[in-house]
Amino acid sequence: MATAYDNFAAHIAELNDILCSISVLKWDARTQMPHGGAETRGHQLATLSRLSQEHFISDKTARLLDAAEAEIASEDPDSYRVRAVRQTRQYFEIIRKLPLDLVGEKAALEPVSEGVWAAAKQNNDFASFAPYLQKQVDLARRQADAIGYAEHPFDALVFEYEPSMTASKLRVLFEGLKVGLLPLLREIVANDKPLEKDLWMREYPLDKQKAFGWEMAQKFGYDVNRGRLDIAPHPFEISFTRQDVRITTRYKLNYFPMALYGTLHETGHALYEQGVDPSLTRSALAIDFLGKYPVGGTSYGVHESQSRLWENQIGRSRAFWNAHIDRFRHYFPEVGAEVDPEFMYRAVNRVRPSLIRVEADEVTYNLHIMLRVELELGLMDGSLKVADLPEVWNAKMEEYLGVTPPDDSRGVLQDIHWSGGGFGSFPGYTVGNVMSAQFLEAARRDVSGLDASLEAGEYAPLLGWLTENIYRHGRAFSGSELLIRTTGNDLTVEPYLRYLRAKFTDLYALPL
Amino acid sequence: MATAYDNFAAHIAELNDILCSISVLKWDARTQMPHGGAETRGHQLATLSRLSQEHFISDKTARLLDAAEAEIASEDPDSYRVRAVRQTRQYFEIIRKLPLDLVGEKAALEPVSEGVWAAAKQNNDFASFAPYLQKQVDLARRQADAIGYAEHPFDALVFEYEPSMTASKLRVLFEGLKVGLLPLLREIVANDKPLEKDLWMREYPLDKQKAFGWEMAQKFGYDVNRGRLDIAPHPFEISFTRQDVRITTRYKLNYFPMALYGTLHETGHALYEQGVDPSLTRSALAIDFLGKYPVGGTSYGVHESQSRLWENQIGRSRAFWNAHIDRFRHYFPEVGAEVDPEFMYRAVNRVRPSLIRVEADEVTYNLHIMLRVELELGLMDGSLKVADLPEVWNAKMEEYLGVTPPDDSRGVLQDIHWSGGGFGSFPGYTVGNVMSAQFLEAARRDVSGLDASLEAGEYAPLLGWLTENIYRHGRAFSGSELLIRTTGNDLTVEPYLRYLRAKFTDLYALPL
Repeated sequence: MATAYDNFAAHIAELNDILCSISVLKWDARTQMPHGGAETRGHQLATLSRLSQEHFISDKTARLLDAAEAEIASEDPDSYRVRAVRQTRQYFEIIRKLPLDLVGEKAALEPVSEGVWAAAKQNNDFASFAPYLQKQVDLARRQADAIGYAEHPFDALVFEYEPSMTASKLRVLFEGLKVGLLPLLREIVANDKPLEKDLWMREYPLDKQKAFGWEMAQKFGYDVNRGRLDIAPHPFEISFTRQDVRITTRYKLNYFPMALYGTLHETGHALYEQGVDPSLTRSALAIDFLGKYPVGGTSYGVHESQSRLWENQIGRSRAFWNAHIDRFRHYFPEVGAEVDPEFMYRAVNRVRPSLIRVEADEVTYNLHIMLRVELELGLMDGSLKVADLPEVWNAKMEEYLGVTPPDDSRGVLQDIHWSGGGFGSFPGYTVGNVMSAQFLEAARRDVSGLDASLEAGEYAPLLGWLTENIYRHGRAFSGSELLIRTTGNDLTVEPYLRYLRAKFTDLYALPL
Repeated sequence: MATAYDNFAAHIAELNDILCSISVLKWDARTQMPHGGAETRGHQLATLSRLSQEHFISDKTARLLDAAEAEIASEDPDSYRVRAVRQTRQYFEIIRKLPLDLVGEKAALEPVSEGVWAAAKQNNDFASFAPYLQKQVDLARRQADAIGYAEHPFDALVFEYEPSMTASKLRVLFEGLKVGLLPLLREIVANDKPLEKDLWMREYPLDKQKAFGWEMAQKFGYDVNRGRLDIAPHPFEISFTRQDVRITTRYKLNYFPMALYGTLHETGHALYEQGVDPSLTRSALAIDFLGKYPVGGTSYGVHESQSRLWENQIGRSRAFWNAHIDRFRHYFPEVGAEVDPEFMYRAVNRVRPSLIRVEADEVTYNLHIMLRVELELGLMDGSLKVADLPEVWNAKMEEYLGVTPPDDSRGVLQDIHWSGGGFGSFPGYTVGNVMSAQFLEAARRDVSGLDASLEAGEYAPLLGWLTENIYRHGRAFSGSELLIRTTGNDLTVEPYLRYLRAKFTDLYALPL
């Protein structure tokens, strides 16, 4: 006979099915759909989204939750069952608190606001976007008030993306990074020299780029029986349960790192999703309830820690190029004959302060994020006005990176996030970078011979440790809990700064 | 203010959204999905299917229907609004009549039965499949009883696929075909000679095959901004509203007609779907309620009439090869240099009695269907036992086609239809062939210079007539109504027999 927990789980499994269906429709829209299908696809997504909302915020969910809670009351609080019920309850209460008119206004504003932003970016016209951004700020503050917070309205927003993070923790985090990164960046810039060979004037056939990236993804451990690789202008990873985890990348004929590292980045996300324990498939621990998104990873930050770890700490390592230069030469024999692993290692690790976040290197990337988070904090607590954003943006770019955007399109208008009201999502990128170094230090501590295996281009020991300690748990534990379980510490910048200092001091021959 | 009809239409539009979402998931499963995703995709499809059922068979639908019926009571009975409401009511009542346990048993049996059939076909083991086929027969008869019928239980089943067809009409239809086709086939077989050049020993690069087929599809009028072409082992056309109508084909390196005519066949289906009036998008007249399928075409037969018309009457015509031999030579220069249009015309119109329906030519195809329909009628009225099927199948093959299957895999086990309980769907293929000739005769009567345009490889005049008279109406009129509106007659075999006699008498140099 079905237990109360079984009934609860079956109901949530259906929610998972609907959310996965929505993701299939989104993947299709971004990679396969002919453009004539956009409008009716929008209707299909809206209807499924409404159905998922009705399914979750229902009296049936409330009844099933009550019964399941009674049944599991005395079980291990760290068990997946208890975590599944507890998190469902937590998000059920939060979502029920959100006023229906607020939810409706947000949903209606998003496509309009994103359209205005896209035009404003194209025309370098911040003024036309400002009123819509103001509406998004107002809605976000109303949402923060509805959810509630102890210290800063931002706390209620960042909760959706990184439940263990708050405004005050972020201030400490970025202060630590700033102190470590700004002097390092200044030294690097002073020591910068052009590469002896201009690698990016060559042509790298797209089918070879795809084959090389795909081979490396599989080397890392990506299971192609549960995934595939497509082209998308804005690359992403998306999963419809751990059994079907797809990635995308984009190609530039004369600049192979875009496709390769895009593929390895999304492969990191995919390894996380594919590594979730099979028992969590279709469960509450594979759902982001607030984001209405079926996902096995526990938060934006932890997810990003894995894409960054595989892309940067593994893919941009000296060991990677030592191990795989032969495969590079196989696909690109002409360039391959001219270069050695050490040259490749230097070529894919150039540091250059630049205007655009998504093109930034490992050292400058977090400064772009810091700037955005500081502005979001100001917008949310009212200390910064929307109208002042461009000026403050440009001043901070000059202060942190030493460059000033020539126009708002390459400045405050460059990212889509705010136009969709996604305040609170930016910290995940930096939290991920910082966590990645903590996790890799812990793996080195636990797995003897880890570096020897990486030098040999063998990733099973690393993937095994990550799966055992992080991936398999799905969303059962928060980022903070995972860090404490694996490293003994909560989030801390020192391992990450150690990693960057060691790598770039060596690469740029700086005094240690 | 929204009218009662508006409210009804909005509710049905959501049903259409859910059904289109299901179709996207099915298309993905057949063309893109990694095989690891099959099991969870099954759950996603089952959940959406259940939601679509709940959405339709609800008190809300009943209320909205009542109100809409009152509002449109005095409107033109042939208007799209009245037809939409009337058909929704008709299927609402039928589906409510189906006992829930019957629906549940059918849904549970289908995947099991299909699995047993696939294994039985592989192992040439009819006996292992027989008990499952018996269950499907029993369920189909219970379904016929629940729906109700005047003369023959088959009438209640064929209604799902061809609402204007009955067992007695089918007997008349096939008797007419038999009298016309059997003598023609005997004469052709007696006159058969091999082609002078063995075209099917060459290699036709797959990318060239795709490009040629795709160019011809666009020549016919397929709008690629609302469609795409993929590979599938069992080719199909599928639409998620008229705005996104996709086709698939399959390729064989040394036999280009498979991909080309597969593409043109599915293009015929796609032209129909793309040609539905935009006002019917997301409406009740774009839903097959019994099949739970979003489709703009009015029935299996009318749909098949369009795939057959474009594939056979246009694509396998002398005019087609006269008009496009240069494009064939462009893609396949070596073979192209050796052949002229007349040779190509003969090569793609070979008639050969064979064992397998899906490989049959224009003359023998309907004999394969006749055999199946005769057996279905016997199974449904109890005059034929499941155990006797192989023997009767083989005897009829010998009688109609002069060939005897060496095993059941190439005999009674070849088609998937019965394993899924799809009794009543086979007639659509022949009804479509017969209708296609009636429609083309009507188009020739109405459009002056139609043949001159076809000789010139211009298809806009034909597509325009078909769109105006058939496609745009969606499912507003039945096949029978469309025939009477365009030709003045209901279904009749004479135009089709005239077409076949003229074409193959000429090709095989038979006495007229």
